[in-house]
Amino acid sequence: MSPGVRLIDVDSSDEENLLEEGVRNRRSPRNEPTDFNIPATNDDDDDVDPAFNLNRRSKEASQYESLDYDVCENVLWRRDQTKIKPKFTVRKDFSRWVISLQIGVCTALVACCINIVIEEVSRLKYGFLKRQVDANVLHGDLSIPYLYWSLLNLVPVVIGATLVAYVEPVAAGSGIPQVKCYLNGVKVPRIVRIKTLAVKAVGVATSVIGGLAGGKEGPMIHSGAVIAAGISQGKSTTFRRDLKILQHFRDDHEKRDFVVGGAAAGVAAAFGAPIGGILFSLEEAASFWNQSLIWRTFFASIISSFTLNIILSAYHGLSSFRYRGLFNLGEFAPLPFEYYELPIFMLMGVIGGCTGALWNALNSRLNMFRAHAIRQRWAKVLEAAFVAVLGATFACLMAYTINDCRPLGNDPTEQPVQLFCQDNEYNAAAALWFQTPEATVKALFHDPPGSHKILTLATFVLIYYPLSCVTYGLSVSLGIFIPTLLIGAAWGRLIASFTVLAFPTSIAFVSPGKYALIGAAAQLGGVVRMTLSLSVILLETTGNIGFILPIILTLMTAKWSGDYFNEGIYDTQIRTSRVPMLPWHVEPEYQNLSARHIMARPVVCVRTEEKVQYLLDILKNTTHNGFPVVEDGDDGSRVNGRLIGLILRSQLVVILKRSFYVESSRFWESTVSIEAFRDEYPRYPAVEDLHVNEYKRSGSFSVNMNMFMNPSPYSVEEGTSVPRIFQLFRALGLRHLVVVSSENRVRGIITRKDFLKHH
Amino acid sequence: MSPGVRLIDVDSSDEENLLEEGVRNRRSPRNEPTDFNIPATNDDDDDVDPAFNLNRRSKEASQYESLDYDVCENVLWRRDQTKIKPKFTVRKDFSRWVISLQIGVCTALVACCINIVIEEVSRLKYGFLKRQVDANVLHGDLSIPYLYWSLLNLVPVVIGATLVAYVEPVAAGSGIPQVKCYLNGVKVPRIVRIKTLAVKAVGVATSVIGGLAGGKEGPMIHSGAVIAAGISQGKSTTFRRDLKILQHFRDDHEKRDFVVGGAAAGVAAAFGAPIGGILFSLEEAASFWNQSLIWRTFFASIISSFTLNIILSAYHGLSSFRYRGLFNLGEFAPLPFEYYELPIFMLMGVIGGCTGALWNALNSRLNMFRAHAIRQRWAKVLEAAFVAVLGATFACLMAYTINDCRPLGNDPTEQPVQLFCQDNEYNAAAALWFQTPEATVKALFHDPPGSHKILTLATFVLIYYPLSCVTYGLSVSLGIFIPTLLIGAAWGRLIASFTVLAFPTSIAFVSPGKYALIGAAAQLGGVVRMTLSLSVILLETTGNIGFILPIILTLMTAKWSGDYFNEGIYDTQIRTSRVPMLPWHVEPEYQNLSARHIMARPVVCVRTEEKVQYLLDILKNTTHNGFPVVEDGDDGSRVNGRLIGLILRSQLVVILKRSFYVESSRFWESTVSIEAFRDEYPRYPAVEDLHVNEYKRSGSFSVNMNMFMNPSPYSVEEGTSVPRIFQLFRALGLRHLVVVSSENRVRGIITRKDFLKHH
Repeated sequence: MSPGVRLIDVDSSDEENLLEEGVRNRRSPRNEPTDFNIPATNDDDDDVDPAFNLNRRSKEASQYESLDYDVCENVLWRRDQTKIKPKFTVRKDFSRWVISLQIGVCTALVACCINIVIEEVSRLKYGFLKRQVDANVLHGDLSIPYLYWSLLNLVPVVIGATLVAYVEPVAAGSGIPQVKCYLNGVKVPRIVRIKTLAVKAVGVATSVIGGLAGGKEGPMIHSGAVIAAGISQGKSTTFRRDLKILQHFRDDHEKRDFVVGGAAAGVAAAFGAPIGGILFSLEEAASFWNQSLIWRTFFASIISSFTLNIILSAYHGLSSFRYRGLFNLGEFAPLPFEYYELPIFMLMGVIGGCTGALWNALNSRLNMFRAHAIRQRWAKVLEAAFVAVLGATFACLMAYTINDCRPLGNDPTEQPVQLFCQDNEYNAAAALWFQTPEATVKALFHDPPGSHKILTLATFVLIYYPLSCVTYGLSVSLGIFIPTLLIGAAWGRLIASFTVLAFPTSIAFVSPGKYALIGAAAQLGGVVRMTLSLSVILLETTGNIGFILPIILTLMTAKWSGDYFNEGIYDTQIRTSRVPMLPWHVEPEYQNLSARHIMARPVVCVRTEEKVQYLLDILKNTTHNGFPVVEDGDDGSRVNGRLIGLILRSQLVVILKRSFYVESSRFWESTVSIEAFRDEYPRYPAVEDLHVNEYKRSGSFSVNMNMFMNPSPYSVEEGTSVPRIFQLFRALGLRHLVVVSSENRVRGIITRKDFLKHH
Repeated sequence: MSPGVRLIDVDSSDEENLLEEGVRNRRSPRNEPTDFNIPATNDDDDDVDPAFNLNRRSKEASQYESLDYDVCENVLWRRDQTKIKPKFTVRKDFSRWVISLQIGVCTALVACCINIVIEEVSRLKYGFLKRQVDANVLHGDLSIPYLYWSLLNLVPVVIGATLVAYVEPVAAGSGIPQVKCYLNGVKVPRIVRIKTLAVKAVGVATSVIGGLAGGKEGPMIHSGAVIAAGISQGKSTTFRRDLKILQHFRDDHEKRDFVVGGAAAGVAAAFGAPIGGILFSLEEAASFWNQSLIWRTFFASIISSFTLNIILSAYHGLSSFRYRGLFNLGEFAPLPFEYYELPIFMLMGVIGGCTGALWNALNSRLNMFRAHAIRQRWAKVLEAAFVAVLGATFACLMAYTINDCRPLGNDPTEQPVQLFCQDNEYNAAAALWFQTPEATVKALFHDPPGSHKILTLATFVLIYYPLSCVTYGLSVSLGIFIPTLLIGAAWGRLIASFTVLAFPTSIAFVSPGKYALIGAAAQLGGVVRMTLSLSVILLETTGNIGFILPIILTLMTAKWSGDYFNEGIYDTQIRTSRVPMLPWHVEPEYQNLSARHIMARPVVCVRTEEKVQYLLDILKNTTHNGFPVVEDGDDGSRVNGRLIGLILRSQLVVILKRSFYVESSRFWESTVSIEAFRDEYPRYPAVEDLHVNEYKRSGSFSVNMNMFMNPSPYSVEEGTSVPRIFQLFRALGLRHLVVVSSENRVRGIITRKDFLKHH
């Protein structure tokens, strides 16, 4: 290797400083400068002192990059800004509102389609099954309806699982963890593509129709996010179309702001809860807020729930706006409660927190096992098919064996199955299974007291709890809101029954619907651990403001007791999938460290003017996404240079692709604009795909960074404490933070991965 | 002056850079370095190029300092941190929750007291007046009740106005703008003191009893904020008590976090709207959020509305929790609406926006006039007394002249006044005035159709609109929610009446209560311009979730149309009182500037070790609150030094007061701790009150900054764009930002005032 490509030298004159504060230097000698020292994954350079007990950063983590929430204010950008007339600013602002409107409408349309398909097909399915049961129960041969049921579960689930496994694996699950990561500033690959949306929509419809223990709410929130990203960019990679409009919104910053609105619109559509929508976005992504973003987000969610309202009201033939949302739990009559019921509610919160924590623990064990054992695509499809049949089996077993007969006509059961009951009676155990889970939740909330035997409810909980646990994590698109609510509502009703048994006088106030609602809230709070947005969502879906205090009390108790054991299911999922999501606070291990202890070193820097060959070398030999630009050090090398800017990998790639060389500047300098970079967003070519002319490569062609680099990257002095740096990352949504000496010479670089011991 | 006190030299080698980007140097030659150049208000140094049309920063602005939201991580702080055991962290976290609980309870208690006093005294007052009217109407001499009424208005108003004018002028008005400023990071003097709370509480009770056109909601939000600040500090300046607990919460950062919770608790108590409370805090102060703060805030508001609920339910003798909040608008029956009503609602939104904007414009003109014309305290009291009598006069005129008789018994009017009506009838015009404004709002919302003549409502609007406009800005504690709602509800009902007149067939759906609600929302939206929190507050107070879409639609239309003319009333007030509140976005004039164009220059710096005399000099001769600490420049002077830290005025004062000198370090160095600084918080002594020993002053005693300074202050390079710096200020709540050259040499300093053209 010629001396010309000697990239890194390290000034280790202050090595002794690293020992300050009793923390030993975390860099092993292995990382000391050698002649050609570009570690393949230098960003991931995290070989640590065992005293820290920080695991070595895994390979997997490097697939997740940060979003560039920070605007790169380079010369091109400023030139673009000065061209902007006040009229244009107004137009841009106006189009933001128009886009929010479209996001709301489209999200609602997609939600409506999914919902109507599920509703209609499920009605056909359960109607057919009911007729089969009715026809066959007389002969006493119940295996035929069982086989039909299994088949009707199997076929849609296999379709959905195949789509997810073979076409777009990122569409599996609820999508909420992925959206959370995106809002946190992590670029999750393929998460906001139209293909993902298509697979998600079809996938969730088939899985719910297939009777899996899951709901459609999570996927709808994800759908809203995809729709927002799609609409705001006016460009689709899947369809290879570029509408050539909205180019000004083509950066991570703008896109993310729209995705916030999309997620809120998704919540609004899924739950009919516009305020819950904005609170969801707030609770999950409370950094980077400003008032106009709040308003646009709110607008998108209002429009979304409005559109949904109109369409579904029309579809259901209701006059005026009555149909409030997909996840309509039915309006409760005012629910009065007494002081002495509050301890019961809190106790239920504790139960919900504990069972929720157990659910999370079981589910994450199971999914870790899955990640090792079930790797082939066909195996994943097979697994989903197995669970689908398992569901049918349990349902049949329960319906056939439990003889919980109730008179017809009292409860609004759509498909009353008679089975072994008298005429004019129906089997309440079967009724729990002969409809979508959502309808069952509604039944548990609103059925009059005494609609279910204790045995029925207990069996149901015992079956549904493990079933939902096994289901979440299959290769299908499904959320966990509905099954969790269902479990909670069932045991809530059970507790009401027990209370009435124990204190027969309490029948006056123990309304089973009320206890079902509290149980559902407790279970949901125990599993997902959101309090604010959940309270509002439950408030908006039940329409009962007077009951908000008990719900909040329950949710808080559930969260606190659950947090004693583990994290919420979404955070658990994010942690096990090793996404570098920034938590709310820096982890305690990092409390007393400073920048020099966590920064990655040595840093690959570039000078203001660099040869093409050097740039190609660093792009190929490193995986870094940002390179500090330095003024020459005293000895003319890159070492020890003063920080004057930062250039991104994506920018360098575009510069090389478009041949923005110093030597040919007369050809491009007058015409170059920020559009050249926007056109490539968001999928910049890989450096391997660049075809740089051999002549330019070997010749003396060079690139000048001045016009392209970010001239004012954020930097901190190396003694700055980690909590302070963390605060900076969270508040500003940083991707790279350069660490400098007190003379502004580059010392290291910090990315979000450096805060996470798991990576 | 000896050369030793030559404080500032300026390196102006890059003066030509200032001309970059077509922006001329904003510093006038007057500010070029002279021999002794400490401008008395250097922080305010803002002499600008007339091309910018930025006004010279006024003297007044300098009374407002920033809060230190940034934690000063100096050696003492770190030492304190390392002493902290995990157990202590848990205890600290736990006490945060306990304090939130106390904040919630106390806020509710104060709110209850105010409310009960107002309710009881008002009942006595209007009962007495009714009897007077009834007794005197027979003789035809109505001047006696008028005189009584005037007197009963006059006495309490004079008491309240005197308290406010003579004891604590900062308690005037609603307090919401002040709380907004505080949450934004401005230290408004005396705003969170217990004395302010006392004056506010008594003041609001007397003014509402005195029949002024105002409400108690704003003051309650302010009360919540004061209570939070008081409880979290365990120390009161008013009572000169220090409980010696909670010392760890004695900094601006912690205090502000609790004040957020207090404001939310105040909203929750005032409106019975816990979710509205947290959204209010969010909408007004969306920077600096994190999840645990959200939860604690939510907890405080829940507790507050819970406590209020229990107390008032008990007081009103209701079983279980029925009394939802002070601002209880009464539960609406479900309000159905039709598609074709939406344009009417939007039109009402436009009307509300325009009349609201007009109200704001009139009110701010009036208050500007007041600020000049009515300066004496007695004049302020007199003015309030005049307005109080004016109110009584208008009320009497209206009651005596409009003959709007309605049969008794249909409407729940508490004090039906017969006046000239038949027996078994009462005067509906008088009924509007014979109760608190709050009760009138409730009546307008819930009275059956046809309860009021068109003439009655029209006259009422015409009287109340200017009356409320004159009232807001008097030297009394009063909010504007209730009067604004009242005006809106009245014209909303009026519109319903007109619609029924114009289209007699529309009587089926035009419910006057519904239109009153929409009108109230429109008017409120037009005046205060909050959308999100107002929607939720109205939602929570009316208990009608199904009606949320029309309310939001109306609020948004009102906001948009109002914004066309001017800002919301609170923002107008803040702007006219010249508080340096940071807006959501940087003002357009600053869009294309960079740090060097707005920074204050030259900067008074200190070296790592400084003589006592020098420190006393800079403290006395400047008003700066932060001084960059520099390493000696090449020539040994402070000029051109490298930035290594930042020290605050308050820290220097404490250092001098406690004699932390290098020469006496053996006496204090081993025992000094951060407590020395916490003990003085928040009212540090003035430099004039320091008694520094003449020997130490003239001798060679000196101070070393290393232990006390913030070793990693935020700094930016001088080419950084202003929007980027603004973003940094908003996101991190900065007070000082040092501007440095690419060699990390101090060039200037930026404070929040530098972003505001008004100052």
